[in-house]
Amino acid sequence: MPPLTHTIQQIADAVGATAVGDVSIQITGAAEPGDAGADQIAMAMAPKYAETLSTGSARAAMMWDGADWQGFGLEAAVLVPRPRLAMSGLTAMFDPGQGLADGIHPSAVIDPTADIAPDVAIGPFAVIGARVRIGAGCRIGPHVTIGMDAQIGRDAVIRDHVSIGARVTIGDRFRAQPGARLGADGFSYVTPETSGVEAARASLGAEGETRAQTWLRIHSLGAVTVGDDVEMGANSTVDNGTIRDTVIGSGSKLDNLVHVGHNTRVGRDCLLCGLTGVSGSVEIGNNVVLGGQTGVADNLFIGDGVITGGGTKVLSNVPAGRVMLGYPAIKMDNHVDIYKATRRLPRLMRDVEALRKAVFKSDASH
Amino acid sequence: MPPLTHTIQQIADAVGATAVGDVSIQITGAAEPGDAGADQIAMAMAPKYAETLSTGSARAAMMWDGADWQGFGLEAAVLVPRPRLAMSGLTAMFDPGQGLADGIHPSAVIDPTADIAPDVAIGPFAVIGARVRIGAGCRIGPHVTIGMDAQIGRDAVIRDHVSIGARVTIGDRFRAQPGARLGADGFSYVTPETSGVEAARASLGAEGETRAQTWLRIHSLGAVTVGDDVEMGANSTVDNGTIRDTVIGSGSKLDNLVHVGHNTRVGRDCLLCGLTGVSGSVEIGNNVVLGGQTGVADNLFIGDGVITGGGTKVLSNVPAGRVMLGYPAIKMDNHVDIYKATRRLPRLMRDVEALRKAVFKSDASH
Amino acid sequence: MPPLTHTIQQIADAVGATAVGDVSIQITGAAEPGDAGADQIAMAMAPKYAETLSTGSARAAMMWDGADWQGFGLEAAVLVPRPRLAMSGLTAMFDPGQGLADGIHPSAVIDPTADIAPDVAIGPFAVIGARVRIGAGCRIGPHVTIGMDAQIGRDAVIRDHVSIGARVTIGDRFRAQPGARLGADGFSYVTPETSGVEAARASLGAEGETRAQTWLRIHSLGAVTVGDDVEMGANSTVDNGTIRDTVIGSGSKLDNLVHVGHNTRVGRDCLLCGLTGVSGSVEIGNNVVLGGQTGVADNLFIGDGVITGGGTKVLSNVPAGRVMLGYPAIKMDNHVDIYKATRRLPRLMRDVEALRKAVFKSDASH
Repeated sequence: MPPLTHTIQQIADAVGATAVGDVSIQITGAAEPGDAGADQIAMAMAPKYAETLSTGSARAAMMWDGADWQGFGLEAAVLVPRPRLAMSGLTAMFDPGQGLADGIHPSAVIDPTADIAPDVAIGPFAVIGARVRIGAGCRIGPHVTIGMDAQIGRDAVIRDHVSIGARVTIGDRFRAQPGARLGADGFSYVTPETSGVEAARASLGAEGETRAQTWLRIHSLGAVTVGDDVEMGANSTVDNGTIRDTVIGSGSKLDNLVHVGHNTRVGRDCLLCGLTGVSGSVEIGNNVVLGGQTGVADNLFIGDGVITGGGTKVLSNVPAGRVMLGYPAIKMDNHVDIYKATRRLPRLMRDVEALRKAVFKSDASH
Repeated sequence: MPPLTHTIQQIADAVGATAVGDVSIQITGAAEPGDAGADQIAMAMAPKYAETLSTGSARAAMMWDGADWQGFGLEAAVLVPRPRLAMSGLTAMFDPGQGLADGIHPSAVIDPTADIAPDVAIGPFAVIGARVRIGAGCRIGPHVTIGMDAQIGRDAVIRDHVSIGARVTIGDRFRAQPGARLGADGFSYVTPETSGVEAARASLGAEGETRAQTWLRIHSLGAVTVGDDVEMGANSTVDNGTIRDTVIGSGSKLDNLVHVGHNTRVGRDCLLCGLTGVSGSVEIGNNVVLGGQTGVADNLFIGDGVITGGGTKVLSNVPAGRVMLGYPAIKMDNHVDIYKATRRLPRLMRDVEALRKAVFKSDASH
Repeated sequence: MPPLTHTIQQIADAVGATAVGDVSIQITGAAEPGDAGADQIAMAMAPKYAETLSTGSARAAMMWDGADWQGFGLEAAVLVPRPRLAMSGLTAMFDPGQGLADGIHPSAVIDPTADIAPDVAIGPFAVIGARVRIGAGCRIGPHVTIGMDAQIGRDAVIRDHVSIGARVTIGDRFRAQPGARLGADGFSYVTPETSGVEAARASLGAEGETRAQTWLRIHSLGAVTVGDDVEMGANSTVDNGTIRDTVIGSGSKLDNLVHVGHNTRVGRDCLLCGLTGVSGSVEIGNNVVLGGQTGVADNLFIGDGVITGGGTKVLSNVPAGRVMLGYPAIKMDNHVDIYKATRRLPRLMRDVEALRKAVFKSDASH
């Protein structure tokens, strides 16, 4: 595939930055400073990265505002005030994609009642069900299944092996990585009599008799509703709701191996990092960031703007704006105090023992 | 697809409840009270849910025993003593399924030696290996692979992209969500000399020299044996045993992204919630419930009826009937005491420091 | 499929052990002592396993060095100094595999520019992109997708439903279990202004105002580079790097549902156990073992030979050779001390309260 080519000026324009030097240099890609070839723009966004420019062959770099680009021997530079933001525009320009061909592959199995916009690309072995609607500009990879009555908005990029269950509704610009599953059945069962879990919750952990019961299935009549600009990571899963839909709000992103349970509502512009698990019937606000391997117990409320550190297990409601860490989750600054105290516990034990001896002795001497 | 229709009387009969009012009303589905249309039965299982009936258009509701259904302006009601149990029957009646067509899709690749009951449905691009046996009533979705010599009982519902490895044996009424993997190779390796892990276990964590060794693979000669009425969640995984089979007992349910390691035996009627990981060679009893993100270290024994809270990490054997929480797992009531004490640790530190000053001063004054 | 057959002598030769007794007995497989048939070799690697030999029908067993095999009524034995090591050779001999046929299945969709060695086996519905290179001896299962410009060395065994993204480079003897994903896009986003996460990191958890911002995508221009002898578990995921490749070093093994984030470098001969999550831009040394459900925060350094226990959450750099446990991770021997102290905390609280009363009283009496 011929590489995408842009000039330094075009790059600066695209990322809203300033081009300096020979702005007509043709660039075919981005590279780390030490690896960059003569046709690549070096990502030297901070002084520590710029140090390795001399070991590469870059003639141009993306650098921080005010960088002495000529001092590094460069012929041109793109100067940016917020480097990570510039990365967004730059990487979008040079993304070569996965190589999915235009048009509909003849091996795809598409129900004749499906309503697919004329410019949609569909890969080999995709299976599209009855009455599915797919908007303009969508690109659907190999081995994708889309169940009956599902709807997908414009400009989705759906990679291989993704499952979209029946009746799932998705907004515009959806992205799904390989193996993402939208619309699996909710994990919902009931025992004929009160179960051990119900008894343990009612008693806060006191043990009753162990009763042998079987689990009856509660089917999922709801599906999943997904807003605009949502992304799902590789092998992530979102389950159907029981009566109404599970909801993923616009702008929210789910990382690899994230699980969202039935009936849960995730708000707008949230990030759920790798291996995070959100149980059923949870309400998550907007702009929430859940660090990797966060867990959220069922039926909880997580307010707007909450942030959890990696591994946090949320076992009770969290008010808006809190930064949480730990298991069980507590405010991060409290956690740091408690954690420091915990590390000094063995010494504290010895101190208290010494005190006991001293006090008992002094008591005895009275 | 035309909606499934049932009368209020039929619904009550199916869930073992009492129908009252105009029991001939035709119902096409279930809805939350505030969202319900005139042809839907409102799920108003508790007073707090019934409050929103007035904002919907329901003429009939499923309600708790003794509810004043006429006072809520309804024309009919289904009165139930255990609402969650009634949900099981009701949702089964109205589940529209995933729309898999009857028969065997012509694109499926089926070994001529496979023995498939005449009424089995098999979706596009399924791959069925040599000598596979599939019982009556099974419905197998698109992109499912079933390896050679695998056996599946009656009435399975296997959604898209599921992998069933060679030699796996499954009972009746199996259900698998998209991307479930049964019969991956066990994660089992050995180093030529004693490995760092073996040394650390022997010394309980004391560090020795770091030795560079490579890992040799122990292949899985066993497979997986699955009982009746087992369900596997989306992208969940169960590995093959090394010599004998890994076992999932009848009635047990695995949620999304759950992992069960090689040689492990899960008993009957267990629930393993989302992102739970059970290592290899674990023995889990019957009626065990492992909360979301529970971890169980290898070679442990978990007794009947054990319940773990979300995030619990089980690092030692657990006797039958225990309710466990924490990392490492301890009895939930002990955990609550310890956790409360932990939160008061910074204050305790200050108290002890004050005591030390007082006692040393009083000692000095003697 | 006819079973593989080897004599006791052949088995001993293959695993580097000593054959004794009637070394010409034909063996068709391995079994646990109590289950073994007359044609199977019993795995009686330690005295406790040998006890059940009498309930099976084995004529031969694999046993520890010096075992009294005749005393157990056996006709032959393979005596091994390191049983787990012998298991590697033995299980390799008897592994019947998944039954993939030789040659390329006619349903596979293979780009004409792909360069595939003549003896490669490719299963039904595989999709191979433009300019892909696949080395001699590779076996590629059904429903595998390999993106454009990907390269795979010799003798890979890739099971069904595996995704290998565009531009991924893989060494020799790669193994992937069903649903493994190599080369998903990295989880990398940026807000136009400073985000809540950036603010919380800068302030170590102090809360600022909640700002509603949307996340802009940073595309992945890098791919994944995988060394020789790497294995990936079922539904595991490794993301593409942003500018350069994410790296998995030779000899490293990833268990089921493991996630490795963008830009991370995993060294040689590491084991990452089930449900472990490694964030982005982490540097992991050689011979590192991460126990099940370990988490590693982003931008950290993990030295050579580090071992973590199950559930460990690594929130700061770890020097070489450390054995770690807990959340946050600390040295395992410290963890054991602290954990014991934690369990005695409620009693400590009572002791301190008694001391306070005693000291205040004695103070008051002065």
